[in-house]
Amino acid sequence: MNVLIIGANGQIGRHIVRKLQESDKHNAIAMVRSDEQKAAFEEQGVQAVLADLEGSIDEIARAAEGADAVVFTAGSGGHTGADKTMMIDLDGAIKSVEAAKQSGVRRFIMVSAIGVHHRELWMESAPYYSAAKHYADIWLQQSGLDYTIVRPGGLINEPGTGKVTAAVDLDRGEIPREDVAEAILASLENPHTIGKAFDMISGETPILEALNAL
Amino acid sequence: MNVLIIGANGQIGRHIVRKLQESDKHNAIAMVRSDEQKAAFEEQGVQAVLADLEGSIDEIARAAEGADAVVFTAGSGGHTGADKTMMIDLDGAIKSVEAAKQSGVRRFIMVSAIGVHHRELWMESAPYYSAAKHYADIWLQQSGLDYTIVRPGGLINEPGTGKVTAAVDLDRGEIPREDVAEAILASLENPHTIGKAFDMISGETPILEALNAL
Repeated sequence: MNVLIIGANGQIGRHIVRKLQESDKHNAIAMVRSDEQKAAFEEQGVQAVLADLEGSIDEIARAAEGADAVVFTAGSGGHTGADKTMMIDLDGAIKSVEAAKQSGVRRFIMVSAIGVHHRELWMESAPYYSAAKHYADIWLQQSGLDYTIVRPGGLINEPGTGKVTAAVDLDRGEIPREDVAEAILASLENPHTIGKAFDMISGETPILEALNAL
Repeated sequence: MNVLIIGANGQIGRHIVRKLQESDKHNAIAMVRSDEQKAAFEEQGVQAVLADLEGSIDEIARAAEGADAVVFTAGSGGHTGADKTMMIDLDGAIKSVEAAKQSGVRRFIMVSAIGVHHRELWMESAPYYSAAKHYADIWLQQSGLDYTIVRPGGLINEPGTGKVTAAVDLDRGEIPREDVAEAILASLENPHTIGKAFDMISGETPILEALNAL
C-alpha cells in the first residue's frame, strides 16, 4: 500500500513513516513543505513530495496521485494562533479530503483529538482547536471516502506499549504518540475500521484487538 | 412573520430590526447577549431575547421558539482575533442553524461575505475569516432548511439606494449596510430566494427586481 502521510514531519507523522518503512507491505510517501524536509526524508530512503497545506487542492491532489491511502496527521501546533488552526487543522484537512477524492484515493485516516465530537468536552483554553478538529472530522465523514477517524487522548512521548482502550466515548487519558502511529498502521490493514470514529487512550487491550472490537 | 435576528445589536442587525418594525407585516425579535442590550431594544418597543452564541444550541433554540424565520447577521467583528472568528462566525453560525432546526424554524437567512465560495478570492489579510463564512454557508446549504445566503461586498455606512447588483459571482464592490438589510427583508417575503446564495454590491437594479432575477 502506498500511503501519503500529510504532516509527515510532525511527531506522530515520523512514527508512522518509520513504521511503514519497517513493514514489508507498505510504502510511505512523506508530504512535506520544504526542500530541506524533503531531502531529509530522502536521505533516509523515504519517498517524499512537496506540497503545502495552505496551497491549492490541486497541489495536494498531485501529491496524492498514485497513493492507496492518505493519513492526515498535520497540525498547526501549539505555538501558532487560531488563524493557523483554522487554515491547517480545519481548512487544510478539508482540502486534503477533497484532494484525496480528486485523485481517486478512497482510504483516508484522520488523526483527530479525544472528545471533539461533543461540544461540551471542547478544550476550555482553546475551543477553536476542538472546533477545527470537529468540523474537519464531519467533513470527512460526509465525503463518501472510506474513512477512519482516530481521536487520541493527550499525546505523550513515552515508548508505545502496544495496548490501548478504544471506544466512541472515553474519559480523558494519555497515550504515547507511538501507539497512535501503530493504531493507524493497524487501521490501514483492517477494513473493519472503515467508517469508524473513536477515542483512544492507553489501556490493556492489544491494538489490533481493540480495533476489532469497535 | 416573527423574525429572530441573531446579531441584532450589530450595524446590519439594527437596520433589519428597524425595517421589520416599520413594516406592518413583521415582528422583530432581537437576540442579544446582555441585559443592557435587551433593555435598549425593549425601550424602542422591540421584543428581545437573551442568548449567547457561545452558549449551547439549546439556549439559541429557546430564543428561536415561535419564530417563523431566523436571520444570522452576527460577527465577531474586526477587533477580535481568529479564535472568536472561529467561535462566532463559524461555530456560532452552525449552532444557530442547528437551533433553528431544533425549534422547527424552516426559514434561515445568512449574511455572508462576497466571494467566500471561491477559495482563490479569500481575504489575503484574514483567510480564516473567509473560511469561517464559507464553511458556515456550506453547513446551512446542507441543513435542509429553506435558506438564503446573501454575500454582500464591502460594507459602508452610506444611506441605502435601494438598488443593487446580485449574482452568484461578482467582482468586488461596496454596498451600504442599509441596502443589505433591505435585501434581507425582501428575501424574507420572496420564496424565489429560497435555496439561493449570491454576491451583492451596489448597482442599478431595484432590490426586488435583482432578487427575482436570481
